[in-house]
Amino acid sequence: MAVKAQVLYSFTAEPGNNELSVQEGETLTLLNQSVGGGWIEAQNSRGQTGLVPEDYIQINSRSAASSTGSFNDAYSATSYSTTAPQGVNGSDAWEAHSTENCDSTQQQALAYQGSIDDDEWDDESDDGKSTGGYTWSQSEEGGGTMQRGTGHHTMKISLNKVFSKTPNPEVFLLTKHMVKENDRLPIYMGEVGPVWLYPQTQLDCVVADPKKGTKMYGLKSYIEYQITPNSTNRPVNHRYKHFDWLYERLMEKFGCAFPIPCLPDKQVTGRFEDEFIKMRMERLQGWMSRLCRHPVVANSEVFQLFLTYTDEKDWKIGKRKAEKDETVGVMVFTTMDPEIRELDPTEVEQKCETFSRFTRSMDDRVKDLLSVGHLHWKRCTGPLQKEYQRIGKAFQNLSSVFNTSGYQGEATLTEALTATGKTYEEIAEICAGQPKKDLHFLMETNSEYKGLLGCFPDIIGVHKAAIEKVKEADRLVAMNKIGPQDKHTMAKNLSTMSYALQAEMNHFHSNRIYDYNRVMQLYLQEQVQFYETIVGKLKQALSQYTTF
Amino acid sequence: MAVKAQVLYSFTAEPGNNELSVQEGETLTLLNQSVGGGWIEAQNSRGQTGLVPEDYIQINSRSAASSTGSFNDAYSATSYSTTAPQGVNGSDAWEAHSTENCDSTQQQALAYQGSIDDDEWDDESDDGKSTGGYTWSQSEEGGGTMQRGTGHHTMKISLNKVFSKTPNPEVFLLTKHMVKENDRLPIYMGEVGPVWLYPQTQLDCVVADPKKGTKMYGLKSYIEYQITPNSTNRPVNHRYKHFDWLYERLMEKFGCAFPIPCLPDKQVTGRFEDEFIKMRMERLQGWMSRLCRHPVVANSEVFQLFLTYTDEKDWKIGKRKAEKDETVGVMVFTTMDPEIRELDPTEVEQKCETFSRFTRSMDDRVKDLLSVGHLHWKRCTGPLQKEYQRIGKAFQNLSSVFNTSGYQGEATLTEALTATGKTYEEIAEICAGQPKKDLHFLMETNSEYKGLLGCFPDIIGVHKAAIEKVKEADRLVAMNKIGPQDKHTMAKNLSTMSYALQAEMNHFHSNRIYDYNRVMQLYLQEQVQFYETIVGKLKQALSQYTTF
Repeated sequence: MAVKAQVLYSFTAEPGNNELSVQEGETLTLLNQSVGGGWIEAQNSRGQTGLVPEDYIQINSRSAASSTGSFNDAYSATSYSTTAPQGVNGSDAWEAHSTENCDSTQQQALAYQGSIDDDEWDDESDDGKSTGGYTWSQSEEGGGTMQRGTGHHTMKISLNKVFSKTPNPEVFLLTKHMVKENDRLPIYMGEVGPVWLYPQTQLDCVVADPKKGTKMYGLKSYIEYQITPNSTNRPVNHRYKHFDWLYERLMEKFGCAFPIPCLPDKQVTGRFEDEFIKMRMERLQGWMSRLCRHPVVANSEVFQLFLTYTDEKDWKIGKRKAEKDETVGVMVFTTMDPEIRELDPTEVEQKCETFSRFTRSMDDRVKDLLSVGHLHWKRCTGPLQKEYQRIGKAFQNLSSVFNTSGYQGEATLTEALTATGKTYEEIAEICAGQPKKDLHFLMETNSEYKGLLGCFPDIIGVHKAAIEKVKEADRLVAMNKIGPQDKHTMAKNLSTMSYALQAEMNHFHSNRIYDYNRVMQLYLQEQVQFYETIVGKLKQALSQYTTF
Repeated sequence: MAVKAQVLYSFTAEPGNNELSVQEGETLTLLNQSVGGGWIEAQNSRGQTGLVPEDYIQINSRSAASSTGSFNDAYSATSYSTTAPQGVNGSDAWEAHSTENCDSTQQQALAYQGSIDDDEWDDESDDGKSTGGYTWSQSEEGGGTMQRGTGHHTMKISLNKVFSKTPNPEVFLLTKHMVKENDRLPIYMGEVGPVWLYPQTQLDCVVADPKKGTKMYGLKSYIEYQITPNSTNRPVNHRYKHFDWLYERLMEKFGCAFPIPCLPDKQVTGRFEDEFIKMRMERLQGWMSRLCRHPVVANSEVFQLFLTYTDEKDWKIGKRKAEKDETVGVMVFTTMDPEIRELDPTEVEQKCETFSRFTRSMDDRVKDLLSVGHLHWKRCTGPLQKEYQRIGKAFQNLSSVFNTSGYQGEATLTEALTATGKTYEEIAEICAGQPKKDLHFLMETNSEYKGLLGCFPDIIGVHKAAIEKVKEADRLVAMNKIGPQDKHTMAKNLSTMSYALQAEMNHFHSNRIYDYNRVMQLYLQEQVQFYETIVGKLKQALSQYTTF
């Protein structure tokens, strides 16, 4: 007997990709469940066949209990950092994040329909397990995260949810850590205060040359990007899912200490369109460049693996190793080694409060700017363009009527009037095309910062939790729950966390100054050029009139 | 017993002018009916007293039949031109026009509430008769003319209504006219075809120095303008009502042959506000200048009287004479004297059709331009201004947050960012103020032309009626209603009308070319300066950033 399945969520096929559009509630006959990559070949009641995403359907004869994971149980343990990696591993982890705090106004236009990356179903992970479910984040301000498939796969818990409960820093605070020299992350005192160790040569890379590849005997397509780091000058290839894997690793390892920028949103429709591929590449470039600029991230084993793996085997071994890294979550602070004296807990609290206030205020202001920028974008490409077109047409139409007057000697006027009309039509186009030239970059930078700023509440939350723990220390000593030495260790470790936060804030500030300085100049330069172009065109039109 | 009256139309008092606000349907007690100038002193039910316009109220004890005029009867006669002046005379004629075809988008903003000129009630006409009622024209495209008080005063018939029935050219067509040398209006053949006789020195005048005067022992105020013609260089004073009187005389005399531009709209509210007075003066200047440029109008006795009267007595005698002029309406063609051969009726019809088509098309295009200009005006002073303000605020707010970072060495960025924000606030103001500098003149010129073009259907209507009459001539001769000599006279007179129309069209075209050439250059020059100003401001903001 043929296996039947119910469609849980409607799905629109990407044309030319052997997919089958299905409607929620529809019953399908499954033709081939072993296609792989998260796809199943199915036939609908009208006899049409094609691939549908495994997670969009509920197979009637299969038990829903077959894929319970250990993540939830693991999370109930005290320390997130030591247990989570056991649960979050392999390809399942790829889906375990939400881009809730990541947003890009520009991208919304493309991504509104719902965003799922093609790669989600093109699994090629080492263990061969299929990916299950995915998170879909609606990134509009104030909008929540919408997750589908969570009922079906219990593994689908976003790291954001984990974070919103704040990782417990206790395990780290009580650790009498001995940093291995290789892992050591020194924090120096620079002119501006605590700073990370910056390399002599700044790492950077070029993301380029997106190529369409196929797999499953040409049934499925994907896009592969070429990444060339300036350290080796040797290109490596990666698909979006690899970037996503890297993001997961970095979140896991550094998410308690640094803001890890989100990846550009996923999306289903139009994911093979040139415009979309170009935009995604541009954003992956921005994402990589930002990470390259972070000395700790850039120097980390997993990031270096991503940029410099030599062959498929090297990559797979590296992946396995990274996934087994235990120095993640709050335990990352065990590797941090400030060069100077311990801080007073009051000072720690003060610094934490300062950063918290700053990031919250900046977050508000960045959102304001994005909102007015979005409005301005729509005005320039909508009503303003149409209005200049109408003005242009009105001048040209008037000129046409003047041409029918039969009166001698008005050719100069009608020609000038026509030219003026055409000029305003050109201005309409220039006006509509301008946001892509200037506002775009201002919006992109602010979107990136909105994403980064959205990470701080969690980072600051960990710090606040640590401060509270240290405040309890006296009581714990009195109750004989910890020894006096433990209390000292906790204060010392809290101090380390604070230095790390300060180093990170200084890194954030210096990048912020650089980024805003650059993007504002770019914006103003392009604005100047925009208005100068209009001046030039208007002067040319003006010169055609007869001077009295 | 006190005389009571019902309020027919709501009226809002001009502050500080001893007026009383009244509501439609309210009952008033009349205190003094002999105040004069169209005003009555009244008391409302709350005991408040003040002046109300006579025509806004219906006196209970007075018969509505007391003021039947002879105009309607007079109009039923065959020829408008010979009988109308008997009915339309004195001050009553002042109200007998509608500005239906006159419109100015700019003015609408001021005049929307309803437009009545103060002078309407400040009658000082020679015969002391009070003015009755007024016409209020809503000049929005497609909107009709709303007239109040027409039920109360049977005299209130607008010339437009008269014209819409088309003056009958028969009387003129059958006239074997002998032009008195003084009145003769020669039509020459110029390079472009038939043209009026243009003077060596173009007449012009300056309208300036509006002064507030009072009358009725300071109870009522009015504005007096000083008009100085370049012919005498001696200023004369006139109030709006005198301009209106002149308009009426010119319409009566030349309305069948030339487009007589309408006066700027009347209005009640804010009529003593500086902004309004300035705008009205500017428009009266435009109106006078346009008339000065018309050789026939400029040289006419009534126009010369208006510009060059020597004293009050001279003015009153001249007024009486002008009001008794019988060479008005279609009879004005009796004074026109083309220097060349008679035209074939077919050719007349063709010319007439050409002009008709041109003026209709131009009317449509001018209305388009006004409509998009109006929209653009609203956009610049509304949403666009607000948006630039918001962008400016967003930059400044971001700068304020940056200032709280506590990070060293970002003063350059925050100062530049604040300057950029202020620059966009300035751009907001420049943007909102710009339409007054350029679009205003484009709109004013197009409004004037819309008014002129609105006159052509009537002018062309008279011509078409004449063409039809001449076509009937053969039949009339056959029926012995006219003699063969009459037929020849009719053809000759039709030919004269056609030459007049051609001369007028050539006058119109040459003025149109001059006006549009001038206003387009002005518009583009101001636009160039506008964008150059923005470029300058943006460059200054840009220069404040650190260059890397």
